[in-house]
Amino acid sequence: MKKEAVVARLLNSQLARPHRESGKAFAPTNIALCKYWGKRDQELNLPVTSSLSISLGHKGATCTLRRSHSKQDSFTLNGKQRLLSSPFGQRLSTYLNLFRTVENLYFQVDMQMNIPYAAGLASSACGFAALVLALNDFFAWNLGKRELSILARLGSGSACRSLTPGFVEWQAGILADGMDSFGEPLMISWPELCIGLLILNEDEKPLLSRRAMERTVATSLLYSAWPDKVKRDLDLLKQALLRKDFQLLGETTESNALTMHALMLSAWPPISYTLPQTIAAMQKIWQLRQEGIAVYFTQDAGPNLKLIFLASDQKIIHHYFDKLEVVQPQLS
Amino acid sequence: MKKEAVVARLLNSQLARPHRESGKAFAPTNIALCKYWGKRDQELNLPVTSSLSISLGHKGATCTLRRSHSKQDSFTLNGKQRLLSSPFGQRLSTYLNLFRTVENLYFQVDMQMNIPYAAGLASSACGFAALVLALNDFFAWNLGKRELSILARLGSGSACRSLTPGFVEWQAGILADGMDSFGEPLMISWPELCIGLLILNEDEKPLLSRRAMERTVATSLLYSAWPDKVKRDLDLLKQALLRKDFQLLGETTESNALTMHALMLSAWPPISYTLPQTIAAMQKIWQLRQEGIAVYFTQDAGPNLKLIFLASDQKIIHHYFDKLEVVQPQLS
Repeated sequence: MKKEAVVARLLNSQLARPHRESGKAFAPTNIALCKYWGKRDQELNLPVTSSLSISLGHKGATCTLRRSHSKQDSFTLNGKQRLLSSPFGQRLSTYLNLFRTVENLYFQVDMQMNIPYAAGLASSACGFAALVLALNDFFAWNLGKRELSILARLGSGSACRSLTPGFVEWQAGILADGMDSFGEPLMISWPELCIGLLILNEDEKPLLSRRAMERTVATSLLYSAWPDKVKRDLDLLKQALLRKDFQLLGETTESNALTMHALMLSAWPPISYTLPQTIAAMQKIWQLRQEGIAVYFTQDAGPNLKLIFLASDQKIIHHYFDKLEVVQPQLS
Repeated sequence: MKKEAVVARLLNSQLARPHRESGKAFAPTNIALCKYWGKRDQELNLPVTSSLSISLGHKGATCTLRRSHSKQDSFTLNGKQRLLSSPFGQRLSTYLNLFRTVENLYFQVDMQMNIPYAAGLASSACGFAALVLALNDFFAWNLGKRELSILARLGSGSACRSLTPGFVEWQAGILADGMDSFGEPLMISWPELCIGLLILNEDEKPLLSRRAMERTVATSLLYSAWPDKVKRDLDLLKQALLRKDFQLLGETTESNALTMHALMLSAWPPISYTLPQTIAAMQKIWQLRQEGIAVYFTQDAGPNLKLIFLASDQKIIHHYFDKLEVVQPQLS
């Protein structure tokens, strides 16, 4: 099925609505505690497995959308012009093709992100989520979170988890059109939970995560074992969230991330987002755990780590990682 | 089945022979191109899968065995006394218990190694192989290579591949007593093949490979996919050796090693022998390949890498890795 068909079904007659002057929205980035790695449908970004994330409060993207006065889309990222021909411009413009309701409708998209772009901090997740919310505002669709999540998924898989704060589960679903594959908030509050962003390298990553994902599924002989691993980890994570069992949460999260990177190592050509400083940070974390400090990490398609710990340990962890940027996602 | 029963069957009446004044032998270390990772029998070191290695010519261990004049075994490693209570002493002494033919027979074992000890350079493989050959000399058993390989396996699994030069395949076998599980030389000569030892850290490794192996099998949910990976890689390696297809040899070897390390990453607690300098070296190798230089690596249970390339590229590779120690295993 094509993206256009999904959009037509979701928006129905609303697609022809006149637009407002501008649309604006914020979406948080999200960190997967159980990763999304592998697609059952490339076109619709339907995943092989379900996944589970936490949204990062005020960390994310703010998107402002206006009608462009020129004959093409134009983009800024953090105030700097990005060419239509850049990867950023190309990706957004292709996505916006789904929503050009009248002839010569071009967009001016201004994206502000308070996380590094394309460095494994889910910038495309919050970027597409913010864009979808801004489109909803611009066209006054008044869509529900479920429909917006499906639209965001068409831009970037993990964007469907970035429409709400807190914990979100993305169900893999089984339908070919993906109408059962969207992010759903979990009604769990854990304000003591802290996420520490350990930025080890802000460069854009050399290999896009979508390419890394494709290569892993196509070439890693270990991938066949991944769906069972995810099934088990999702069960454990939900138990951990219900019981507020921090050790179980931390162990399951770290093991899930390392297993995703293990799959990449076993792909060909091998994929490694891990830099020397990433290994050094991991060793430091393992050492701290040996000393009885409950700190765990997760790693996405980039060299940076996200540390997971409880607010009561924040001070000591800051002592060992002095440049850590700490977010308490559910502290209001 | 117990080790003692295997020894009794192999040595039969010979076990009671009077010994000579001393025994001495050299055994090469070996580098697995397809790894041995996981046991089907802990006591007899019987592997889950077959594996394939190349012996490293003059790199290895020389063992000299004498009757000890004291009431216990005594050991030296590279001329330095090692206590009976040290891990080195304990492991050898326990093994020697299998061969004490008369009361109060204790051994003086002098081991000389020209590779770092316990740093993932198969020091236990060449050590036990040299010890078995020295025992064969000391007791004048005149055993064949097959029997010696089985005896060496009882000391350390991969030691069974260290009795002969060149390429060796260790068949997993199916028998409970392991009589069909030993190293067999492959009749293939490839004198242009070079192995470069890239020593990044000479420290003894923090986690013994046997413990790492146990933990991987017990806790990695990816391990179920390993036997199929090995089966495929062994087929590819044999094709590569027959056709002298260096690219196929290099790709298969590197992918096999990375997949073994992937399994360890997905174990819990996670196992990583990779140091920051290991990652830096891998990235350099991947970069060189991008530039058209045919160099690959393998990594064992330690932070050091073994580079694989052809003699025609030795000069350029030395240019990028100036401390590389190069062995041409089959150049006589």
